[in-house]
Amino acid sequence: MAGDDVKKSDANASGGVKRKEVKKETGLGLTNCKDDNFGEWYSEVVVNGELIEYYDISGCYILRPWAMSIWETMQKFFDVEIKKMNIQNCYFPLFVSPGVLQKEKDHVEGFAPEVAWVTKTGDSDLEVPIAIRPTSETVMYPYYSKWIRGHRDLPLKLNQWCNVVRWEFSNPTPFIRSREFLWQEGHTAFATKEEADAEVLDILELYRQIYEEYLAVPVVKGKKSELEKFAGGLYTTSVEAFISNNGRGIQGATSHCLGQNFAKMFEINFENEKGQKGMVWQNSWAYSTRTIGVMVMVHGDDKGLVLPPKVATVQVIIIPVPYKDADTRGIFDACASAVDILSGAGIRAKADFRDNYSPGWKYSHWEMKGVPLRIEIGPKDLANSQVRVVRRDNSLKIDISRTNLVEHVKEMLNNIQHNLFDVAKQKRDACVKTIRTWDEFVEALSQKKLILAPWCDEEEVEKGVKARTKGEMGAAKSLCSPFDQPELPEGTKCFASGKPAKKWTYWGRSY
Amino acid sequence: MAGDDVKKSDANASGGVKRKEVKKETGLGLTNCKDDNFGEWYSEVVVNGELIEYYDISGCYILRPWAMSIWETMQKFFDVEIKKMNIQNCYFPLFVSPGVLQKEKDHVEGFAPEVAWVTKTGDSDLEVPIAIRPTSETVMYPYYSKWIRGHRDLPLKLNQWCNVVRWEFSNPTPFIRSREFLWQEGHTAFATKEEADAEVLDILELYRQIYEEYLAVPVVKGKKSELEKFAGGLYTTSVEAFISNNGRGIQGATSHCLGQNFAKMFEINFENEKGQKGMVWQNSWAYSTRTIGVMVMVHGDDKGLVLPPKVATVQVIIIPVPYKDADTRGIFDACASAVDILSGAGIRAKADFRDNYSPGWKYSHWEMKGVPLRIEIGPKDLANSQVRVVRRDNSLKIDISRTNLVEHVKEMLNNIQHNLFDVAKQKRDACVKTIRTWDEFVEALSQKKLILAPWCDEEEVEKGVKARTKGEMGAAKSLCSPFDQPELPEGTKCFASGKPAKKWTYWGRSY
Repeated sequence: MAGDDVKKSDANASGGVKRKEVKKETGLGLTNCKDDNFGEWYSEVVVNGELIEYYDISGCYILRPWAMSIWETMQKFFDVEIKKMNIQNCYFPLFVSPGVLQKEKDHVEGFAPEVAWVTKTGDSDLEVPIAIRPTSETVMYPYYSKWIRGHRDLPLKLNQWCNVVRWEFSNPTPFIRSREFLWQEGHTAFATKEEADAEVLDILELYRQIYEEYLAVPVVKGKKSELEKFAGGLYTTSVEAFISNNGRGIQGATSHCLGQNFAKMFEINFENEKGQKGMVWQNSWAYSTRTIGVMVMVHGDDKGLVLPPKVATVQVIIIPVPYKDADTRGIFDACASAVDILSGAGIRAKADFRDNYSPGWKYSHWEMKGVPLRIEIGPKDLANSQVRVVRRDNSLKIDISRTNLVEHVKEMLNNIQHNLFDVAKQKRDACVKTIRTWDEFVEALSQKKLILAPWCDEEEVEKGVKARTKGEMGAAKSLCSPFDQPELPEGTKCFASGKPAKKWTYWGRSY
Repeated sequence: MAGDDVKKSDANASGGVKRKEVKKETGLGLTNCKDDNFGEWYSEVVVNGELIEYYDISGCYILRPWAMSIWETMQKFFDVEIKKMNIQNCYFPLFVSPGVLQKEKDHVEGFAPEVAWVTKTGDSDLEVPIAIRPTSETVMYPYYSKWIRGHRDLPLKLNQWCNVVRWEFSNPTPFIRSREFLWQEGHTAFATKEEADAEVLDILELYRQIYEEYLAVPVVKGKKSELEKFAGGLYTTSVEAFISNNGRGIQGATSHCLGQNFAKMFEINFENEKGQKGMVWQNSWAYSTRTIGVMVMVHGDDKGLVLPPKVATVQVIIIPVPYKDADTRGIFDACASAVDILSGAGIRAKADFRDNYSPGWKYSHWEMKGVPLRIEIGPKDLANSQVRVVRRDNSLKIDISRTNLVEHVKEMLNNIQHNLFDVAKQKRDACVKTIRTWDEFVEALSQKKLILAPWCDEEEVEKGVKARTKGEMGAAKSLCSPFDQPELPEGTKCFASGKPAKKWTYWGRSY
């Protein structure tokens, strides 16, 4: 139920003209279209949706409560799950001494260009500069060496929730590529490779759940190429998402088997049951606030954020729609009562009673913030003992009786959660292009496809692909070889080298 | 029920001789006594109790899972409470640009000597060095100025859980004074001073609860002197604990009213209902991992840590005590079943089934780690369908029937929690010395007392007290003026200046 301004706002699909009308009218709205100016749209929507505030140091961003609560929801899920796996939380220092940082050669080469150095405290220069952790392998493993003596000290499974700093110079983007970000980093050590291998996949499955079941973002599980794996590790698995609007893959989270490489450098040895010396097998794995950025990119639209109900701080926003001659008190009471009823059933509901904004302004405001469901209560609703419910994901409106409110709302939130995933998956799947030759590859790349190609799995060939696709938009690279492999008939050739193909691999431009 | 070694370990009070015997026998134990070498005892107990590992950068420490889980318990409590107060979590960057940092003069003077500066990233020098936050007033308030426009934007109440860096040069001590530490910092802005004043005390009450109800550490609520208040603030309230072993006060947590000083510097203005311009009233408040150090200092003994049940990761450790000819299987099953029964009732219980350690070693090990209750199950216990329960706080042993296990254990844990607080309070109270003259003050200080003295409340007089008590042990200073003031008869004079006293104030040496 609503006035004229409301209908206009409701009817507002992604058409540019109508959108601008709303903006003018309400002072809200976005000036960029997702389809036309994706990058600008993203920068605008994270700010207008109140997830982010830009900060006066480039590449650093303020995470506002609307973003932080999403992070906390994912954190709660993941923390419970890893505790079930007997992984314990700890906290290691922010600072690393240069000697330790440089111990693993490949690793430091991977991170050195991005390391921030503290050289001064107060007015004094430090004798030796100190690095800020870009990740904590080298921070932690000297102590693993100390703590692990015998097989009974294994497995050692630690995790920490913390900030890390990587001073990247290319295109800082909120959530996606920032100079400081929040993440968890798990670091585990096992007696056998089998145990390490198994854990890599258990953790990757949790990352899939975060993306698919919480953020409603479809991902592909797979293995990274040698060129793209973690610096210093044995192999890297990841969940890969895809942004269909700009045709870029994006690494969602990674679960690495480090093998025995760090164990060798940091001398992490143990004595087994038979008194023989062995070296541990290690994993490290992480997901970061990048998750939130991927979610925004996949679901957001020209009206703003679209939050999946499972991570939305406010799942249902209730807006009174009073008229001059109507029973305003009755309408407000009905809104307050709806909040109580829904909250009592564990639904995160809130009413917007502000008297200095029109209902239409509030609709746009909460649409911008991505709240999954809006409930409007006006005079007619009050008279009929009903409420009007509007879905953020597809703008569908229905009137439902106040007697079945909880049941209906629960069902609708559940539908929205699944619909967001289904729609995103259809979009993603529609972008997948299976190719077999270099020409097909180049064409698919120009069409911004997520390219599935038979590959010989040679590092030099990937370097060649990168070199041959270099350009304004960035070079193409391998994203992952999916665990779920299509059949690869005998004699299939690599799209890039013509050598015998060993596996199917996803390729594309990426973040 | 236990063998010979066990009785020896159990009987082990704080006598040096017996203690050393145990150490030799088990490879555990502490080489320092709490009463004889308090500082060394503390450094040793936090490591042997597995809370802390020393790190290769001085003043930085590794928080091991045994410490982290205590932090998480307090975090959970506090986070729920502040969310009830509509305070929202957020995350601001680690880095501050120098211009912003230096905006509030008194504030920057207070922190500048301890600020760590990033001047280099990768191989490049930064054009302008960047500070690492020592606290976030100057990080946050430029954005408060942006976000707050009208009275409807107030109150603005944010909190963040994060790390901060203060590069102190004096005596780094684990938890108590470290160069990086974890804390929460709340930053709120109100339209009126009344609202700000009320919140200062609401938060202080939560800090009291953390100390007294979780950590079983008695604290005094009060107000800091002008000299000791937060740099740049209007007034500071705190909860103050006292370490009777070395006679030092320790600031437990602080809740500051910043007044309008930062609002002025950062131009945080708003328009009230009547369209008039106003400046906000601000608070900031914080508690840190220092809490854990205070708990260790107050409760620990010569056998190791003593953890209050409410914060202990493991509340009950169950140890099988098999004999050669006994029903080992039966004993192990009884232990496993006790874990199940207690865990099912929400008690954090764990059995130590390791076969390479004797029961006696395990007793010492879990005593060192401070587990509140130990349950021993041997052949006699099995036969009598009972268990032996041993309290960590007072070494009391009782045999209880397995049929009432949950009820008994709950009651004992509750008793331990209260007993720890009561004993600590008696100890603290026994150290309080009320004095009226300078001579009495000097004598009480030499006796390591917590000194309550009538004071004129003048800054110059406090500076004088500091100057006159300077020495090896550090100068005395005011700790707080307790909210709970004894009567101050007309004509009472200041202990230090002889001027008319305005209030009772606690004085002492402090951390």
